[in-house]
Amino acid sequence: MTTTTSQENTPKPSNRYTRGLAKLREVDGRTGEDVLAGLNDIAPDLARYIAEFAFGDVYSRPGLNLQHREIATIAALAAMGTATPQLKVHIKAGLNVGLSEEQIIEILIQISLYAGFPAAINAVNAARDAFAEHKTL
Amino acid sequence: MTTTTSQENTPKPSNRYTRGLAKLREVDGRTGEDVLAGLNDIAPDLARYIAEFAFGDVYSRPGLNLQHREIATIAALAAMGTATPQLKVHIKAGLNVGLSEEQIIEILIQISLYAGFPAAINAVNAARDAFAEHKTL
Amino acid sequence: MTTTTSQENTPKPSNRYTRGLAKLREVDGRTGEDVLAGLNDIAPDLARYIAEFAFGDVYSRPGLNLQHREIATIAALAAMGTATPQLKVHIKAGLNVGLSEEQIIEILIQISLYAGFPAAINAVNAARDAFAEHKTL
Amino acid sequence: MTTTTSQENTPKPSNRYTRGLAKLREVDGRTGEDVLAGLNDIAPDLARYIAEFAFGDVYSRPGLNLQHREIATIAALAAMGTATPQLKVHIKAGLNVGLSEEQIIEILIQISLYAGFPAAINAVNAARDAFAEHKTL
Amino acid sequence: MTTTTSQENTPKPSNRYTRGLAKLREVDGRTGEDVLAGLNDIAPDLARYIAEFAFGDVYSRPGLNLQHREIATIAALAAMGTATPQLKVHIKAGLNVGLSEEQIIEILIQISLYAGFPAAINAVNAARDAFAEHKTL
Amino acid sequence: MTTTTSQENTPKPSNRYTRGLAKLREVDGRTGEDVLAGLNDIAPDLARYIAEFAFGDVYSRPGLNLQHREIATIAALAAMGTATPQLKVHIKAGLNVGLSEEQIIEILIQISLYAGFPAAINAVNAARDAFAEHKTL
Repeated sequence: MTTTTSQENTPKPSNRYTRGLAKLREVDGRTGEDVLAGLNDIAPDLARYIAEFAFGDVYSRPGLNLQHREIATIAALAAMGTATPQLKVHIKAGLNVGLSEEQIIEILIQISLYAGFPAAINAVNAARDAFAEHKTL
Repeated sequence: MTTTTSQENTPKPSNRYTRGLAKLREVDGRTGEDVLAGLNDIAPDLARYIAEFAFGDVYSRPGLNLQHREIATIAALAAMGTATPQLKVHIKAGLNVGLSEEQIIEILIQISLYAGFPAAINAVNAARDAFAEHKTL
Repeated sequence: MTTTTSQENTPKPSNRYTRGLAKLREVDGRTGEDVLAGLNDIAPDLARYIAEFAFGDVYSRPGLNLQHREIATIAALAAMGTATPQLKVHIKAGLNVGLSEEQIIEILIQISLYAGFPAAINAVNAARDAFAEHKTL
Repeated sequence: MTTTTSQENTPKPSNRYTRGLAKLREVDGRTGEDVLAGLNDIAPDLARYIAEFAFGDVYSRPGLNLQHREIATIAALAAMGTATPQLKVHIKAGLNVGLSEEQIIEILIQISLYAGFPAAINAVNAARDAFAEHKTL
Repeated sequence: MTTTTSQENTPKPSNRYTRGLAKLREVDGRTGEDVLAGLNDIAPDLARYIAEFAFGDVYSRPGLNLQHREIATIAALAAMGTATPQLKVHIKAGLNVGLSEEQIIEILIQISLYAGFPAAINAVNAARDAFAEHKTL
Repeated sequence: MTTTTSQENTPKPSNRYTRGLAKLREVDGRTGEDVLAGLNDIAPDLARYIAEFAFGDVYSRPGLNLQHREIATIAALAAMGTATPQLKVHIKAGLNVGLSEEQIIEILIQISLYAGFPAAINAVNAARDAFAEHKTL
C-alpha cells in the first residue's frame, strides 16, 4: 500500500476511496454506484471525488448518524428544487438507512414552510417515483 | 368557544392559533415570539399564519419528532442561503429541542456537499452567532 | 358541524377547506383540483393544506384582486425557475381570471430584467404549452 | 442627432437612453437615478444598459401597465430573496405608480405560498424600511 | 438606413440587431438562431432583445474575449441549475469558440465547490448531450 | 510522514492539505488563510476540507488555468447571489492571478444576461469593495 506520494500519483484506490465506496454502498445501495459509473465516460474524477470526499470523508464522520444525514440531505435538495435526480437517490437512501415513507413525506411537508408549496409538491412527486423504485430493488 | 364561523370571522384566537403559539414557545422559546411580534405593525396576518399554519398545523403533526424537524429546517435554510435571520432562529430552536452544537455543525458540513462550500461557511458563521445568543438566554 | 375540536380531529371538511376548494375552482378550474387529487395517494394532508391555507386563507383575502395575485404568482414562479409545472398551472389560472396572453408574455419579458434571459425563455416555453392547454379546456 | 452609427459609437445619449431615463424617473423617482449614479465609477455601461434596455425598451412597452409591472417585479424579487436593495427600490416604485401599502403587503403574503415564509418575512422587513423612506421623499 | 426614430418605430432591423445576429452566429452557430426562431410565435420581441442586447450590446464588447465569456456563462448556468437547455447551448458555444471538452469538464468540477455536487453532476450530464450534438453539426 | 493510515487518523497534515494550503496562498493570498482561520473555532474540519479538497484536489488540477478557474468562480458566485463574502474573496483572487479590474467588471455585465440586473448590480458593488481592499494589501 506504500507511500502517500505514489498513492496520489497513481490510479490505485486510496483509503478514502475504498472507505467512501463502502459507505456509498451502505447508504445508497446499487443506485449510488450507478450514479458514479454514469460519470465515468467524461468526468471520472468527479465520480472519484464524490466517493472520496462526499462518502469517504463527510458521510463517514461520527457526529451525525446516517438517518440524520439523509433527513438533512432530503430537506436541502427538496428546498433547492434544482436536483430532482439526486433527490430521488437520497429518498431511496433514506429508506435504506431506516427512515419510513411517512417520515420522508413529513420532511417534505415541513419544507413547504421554508421553500414554498411548489417545492413540496415537486418533491412529493419525486418521492412517489423513489418509493416505487425502492420496492423493486 | 362557540361555532366555527364566528371563530373564523373574529380576531378571537382559533384553536390552531393557540396550539401553534404553544408549539412555537416549545420550539423557539422567546425568539419565535419576537419574530411574530416584529411583524405585527405592518403584516399581523402573516404572523398569525405562521402561528396557525406553520406551528399549529405542521409542527404539531405526529409523524416526525422536533429534532428531525429542526434538522430538516436547518439543512433547508442553510442550502437556500437566502434566509440568514431564520437560519439563526432555527439553529437556536435546534439547541432548544436537544440537538448538540456538534450535530448542528455536522449538518452544515453535510450541506457543503449539496449546496457548496460558501453556503456551509456562511451557515457556520450564522451558527457561531446563534450558539452565543443561545447561551445568554 | 358543532365544535372546533371535532372539526379538527376528523376528516370532515373545515370551513376553510370548503372556502378554499371553491376559490381553487374559481382560480384554477379543473387543473387545480387535479393537482390536489394527484397528491392524495401519498400526501393527502399537503393537498388539504393547499386548499385550506393557500386558497381558503390567502387567496380569499380581500386586499388584492385575483388578477394581481396571478401576476405576482406567475412572476415569482418564472423568476424562481424551479417550478415549471406550477408555472403552467398559474398561467392557465391567469387566463381564467382575465389576464390576456399578451399581458402574460409581458410579465415574462419583464422578468428577464430581474432573473435573466434563460428564466424568461423557459417561462415563455411553458406559456406556449399552457396557452394551448387552456384552449382545449 | 444624425445617424445611427455615430449615435452608437459616441457617448451621446441614444433615444433609448433618453426615453429610459424619463421612464426611470416616472417609475422610481430619485431613487432610480441614485442607483444608476452609484454604478458610474466602475461600471457606467451597466448603468447605461439599465436605462436603455430595462427602462427604455422593456418598461416603455405598452402591453402591461406600470402597476402590473411593479407587482411582477416586487413578487419576483421577494421570491428570489437575493436582491434586498432592489426589492426596496421597487417597493418604493410600486408606491410611486399607485400601489397601496396594503396591496404590497398582500403581494408578499401571496409570495409566502410559493417561496416560503422566510422570503415573505424578509420582504416584509424590507417593505417596512421602504415605506418609511418613501414618506421622507 | 436613415434616422434613429424611424429605425425604432418600424420592424426594420437596427444596427444593434444586425450586429447581434452576426455575433450570435459566431458564438452559437445554428443553435442560437434556432433558439430565437423558437420564440417568434409568441414572444418575438424577447428574441429581438436577446439579439440586440445580449449579443449586439454585451457579447460585442471588447473587454473580455469570447472564450472567457463562455467560461463565465457555462459556470453561471451550471451553478444556477435552473437552465439546462441554455447550459447545453452555451457548452456547444464554448466548443465553437475554442474551449476543449476537457476545459468544460474542468469548469463543471470547479463549480461543484461553489454550488454542490448535484449541480456539477447534472451539468456533466448536460455536457455529454451537448458534446454529442456538437459532433453532429 | 510514513503510512497512509497514520496520516488519516492523526491531525498531522496530509499531502493534500499541504498542497492545498500552498495553492490557497497562490490564489487568495492572505485573505484565503483568514477565511480558513475564521472557521477554526467551531468547524475546523470544514476549513481542512476546503484546503484539502477545494485547493489540494480541485484547484491543483492541470486542465484549466487559475485565471479561467477564477472567471468561472466569480461568474458562479455572482449569479447565485447568495455568497457576497466569498464573491469578494474571489474577485481579489482574480486580481491576484492576473485578471484586470476591467475583465472582472465585464464578467459581471455578462452575468446580467443570465441572472438579471440585480445580481450584476450587487456583484459590482461587491467588486468596488474588493478592488479597494486589494489595493491595501
